[in-house]
Amino acid sequence: MSDPLKVAIAGLGTVGAGTVKVLAKHAERIAARCGRPVSVTAVSARSKGKDRGVDLSGYVWFDDPVAMAKGADADVIIELIGGADGPALALTHAAFAAGRHVVTANKALVAEKGSELATAAEQAGVTLAYEAAVAGGIPIIKALREGLAGNRISRVLGILNGTCNYILSTMEETGRAFDDVLKEAQDLGYAEADPSFDIDGVDAAHKLAILASLAFGTKVEFSQVHIEGIRRISALDFQYARDLGFKIKLLGLAGTTEHGVYQRVHPCLIDEDGPLAAVDGSFNAVIAEGDFVGRSVYEGRGAGEGPTASAVVADLMDIAAGRKAHVFGVPASQLADLKPVPIEQRTGSYYVRLKVVDRTGVVADIGGAFRDHNISMDSVLQRDHDADGNAFVIIVTHDALESDLRSALKALEANSAMVEPPQVIRIEDVWGE
Amino acid sequence: MSDPLKVAIAGLGTVGAGTVKVLAKHAERIAARCGRPVSVTAVSARSKGKDRGVDLSGYVWFDDPVAMAKGADADVIIELIGGADGPALALTHAAFAAGRHVVTANKALVAEKGSELATAAEQAGVTLAYEAAVAGGIPIIKALREGLAGNRISRVLGILNGTCNYILSTMEETGRAFDDVLKEAQDLGYAEADPSFDIDGVDAAHKLAILASLAFGTKVEFSQVHIEGIRRISALDFQYARDLGFKIKLLGLAGTTEHGVYQRVHPCLIDEDGPLAAVDGSFNAVIAEGDFVGRSVYEGRGAGEGPTASAVVADLMDIAAGRKAHVFGVPASQLADLKPVPIEQRTGSYYVRLKVVDRTGVVADIGGAFRDHNISMDSVLQRDHDADGNAFVIIVTHDALESDLRSALKALEANSAMVEPPQVIRIEDVWGE
Repeated sequence: MSDPLKVAIAGLGTVGAGTVKVLAKHAERIAARCGRPVSVTAVSARSKGKDRGVDLSGYVWFDDPVAMAKGADADVIIELIGGADGPALALTHAAFAAGRHVVTANKALVAEKGSELATAAEQAGVTLAYEAAVAGGIPIIKALREGLAGNRISRVLGILNGTCNYILSTMEETGRAFDDVLKEAQDLGYAEADPSFDIDGVDAAHKLAILASLAFGTKVEFSQVHIEGIRRISALDFQYARDLGFKIKLLGLAGTTEHGVYQRVHPCLIDEDGPLAAVDGSFNAVIAEGDFVGRSVYEGRGAGEGPTASAVVADLMDIAAGRKAHVFGVPASQLADLKPVPIEQRTGSYYVRLKVVDRTGVVADIGGAFRDHNISMDSVLQRDHDADGNAFVIIVTHDALESDLRSALKALEANSAMVEPPQVIRIEDVWGE
Repeated sequence: MSDPLKVAIAGLGTVGAGTVKVLAKHAERIAARCGRPVSVTAVSARSKGKDRGVDLSGYVWFDDPVAMAKGADADVIIELIGGADGPALALTHAAFAAGRHVVTANKALVAEKGSELATAAEQAGVTLAYEAAVAGGIPIIKALREGLAGNRISRVLGILNGTCNYILSTMEETGRAFDDVLKEAQDLGYAEADPSFDIDGVDAAHKLAILASLAFGTKVEFSQVHIEGIRRISALDFQYARDLGFKIKLLGLAGTTEHGVYQRVHPCLIDEDGPLAAVDGSFNAVIAEGDFVGRSVYEGRGAGEGPTASAVVADLMDIAAGRKAHVFGVPASQLADLKPVPIEQRTGSYYVRLKVVDRTGVVADIGGAFRDHNISMDSVLQRDHDADGNAFVIIVTHDALESDLRSALKALEANSAMVEPPQVIRIEDVWGE
């Protein structure tokens, strides 16, 4: 048996502690599979004394993670600090400069600094591995990078944020309001005290940008992701969606078109019988479509100690066994520039909910505005007068250009019958064409 | 760029032709990802003149695949002949003896000769890669071998045969009889002229034995798989299953218990809202449960030119890029003996359909036999008198030992009210515990 792969861990939250547990519990299994043991040699975290449920006494302690990346007796630095800048970024560069691999669960870092880091890793002859950064319970990075590598991937999409999925699933099941369910999720620890990173779609967008790069061989472009969160989804939308045969999910979607690559994160209406509709609670799911493989679907837990630590360890085992791949599938210098397709160029159908004064001619006005902007309607429902005598008009469109829909809604703004801004949710066919 | 990886293909049916197509269409992409081109140098098939829709003129032709494995200018032999013996086995050994890797889509070969071949490959310092042998559209071999390698896997199960899944899905949708749907599947080319390999569960059992070895680190033991096919499933069973909230699927299930490893392929009743219930038609799906990752689910096409060729090419790309793993995850010498758990030791619930003479006391007799053998009943329904005045009694049991159920049914055999042998379908909780 060869020398052990020596590992230093920066950040000892749940994932760091979980990684120590996996490596300890399965030391023998891991050594058998890799041909060598994987041994933790050093750790670094904010508070040395804190009880984390694991014995750290055998490891060298570093107060400064960057100093550890430079100075620890380690082949690999595991970066579990988080954030796209600061110590996580400094540590990663320090590790590369010292000729050490980096394994990370940090989606912000990979999404925002991925191309720069891939280049630095390659120059140093080491790797940046990040299976844990996207849907820890799903080996989707490896699937896109290796398992489906013989395909041209045309689309990758999925449920990428467990907090949003939990909130939306619960709203759907219970009919309760967003604020109420969010509060409960916070009390249960499923949502952060400041939940904006999750519920505004930023976390899902980080993951989507990473998947898009791997899928399409393009540079990671987080800044080009169109992002909308779930704050504006109401119990009413769930009710009408159900009547129309849809569920509401926050999806990340990226795909190639003749104009370039679109990347978007937003709430979607999806067929209640489709492949993502049953993915509830804290689960994530990803669909990839390749020209030879067709559609393949992956589902598993999105986060949490066990699934994320499992992904970190898988990356360590690849390094221990000497299995190499380019950080984003191809050499960093060969990653193509991503030509973004703006959201206004989306073609698809839409759910539009308008709150209107219930008077003669309103539906005709709406119909006229849609017609004048090339929007063909699949169905129009008028529902549920409220206490003030207002009504909801629910429209499902045929395929339309988003810029046309925006123009139609803009034209309606001046109409005095409009009581509040329209609610628009894109309808997505997750089955693909 | 390094020298090309040279590949010789034995067998030019749909998968062989598909592999040539993928390698040609994506030559540039593959070279970028592997750091070297993957080039076909030689081919062998039964009929040299046949038009396969691909240009073979640049390749050296061999009439004898074993001679090609020995003599071709190739680093890898792709074995697409099929069968656990004969030329497929001879070719594989010849390739290893000549120091060449083998990539195969041959589940029978891997399931029946896997341990022997893994040992031979290791001794020769080459690999046996078989992603295409199980659910071509799902990179499940890589997921179990690498992506989930930090876990102790306790259970792996799935829909592993697209022909059976198509027949069962169609029976469910249409209410038609088995023979009728099988005939149609044969006419459409979804089932073979001799369909027994698929519908009797042998193909699924081959795949299950491979998954079990990878999941549990045990020797491949196809001979220890308990196999039942789908011939006895009737339209009536679908009707009653639906009334009870179940779908019927042919599943392969393998898991570890305190007594050893069970491996079984048989029709199952599964919760109609569960994760495999929506997998229809020719799709396959696999669920793996690991101690850290929890449940992860994979779905994709089970067979066909594109998905299977995609899997073959993924294996080639691993070899081209120098990514190595043990054939079944651990060195062949460390694969544990599989201690089989006989089907009689299964504990779970059962659907039992009895056709009985509709006379007073029959249900009491049945209840007595079940009680006398420790079988507790969850529900008993009496339904649908037929023209002869016979009735169906449908029983769903609580968790029971299979040997107890068999004893209870044996005891009822002597009862003159029993019109035909009982139909028993195991109810499986695919969510796990």
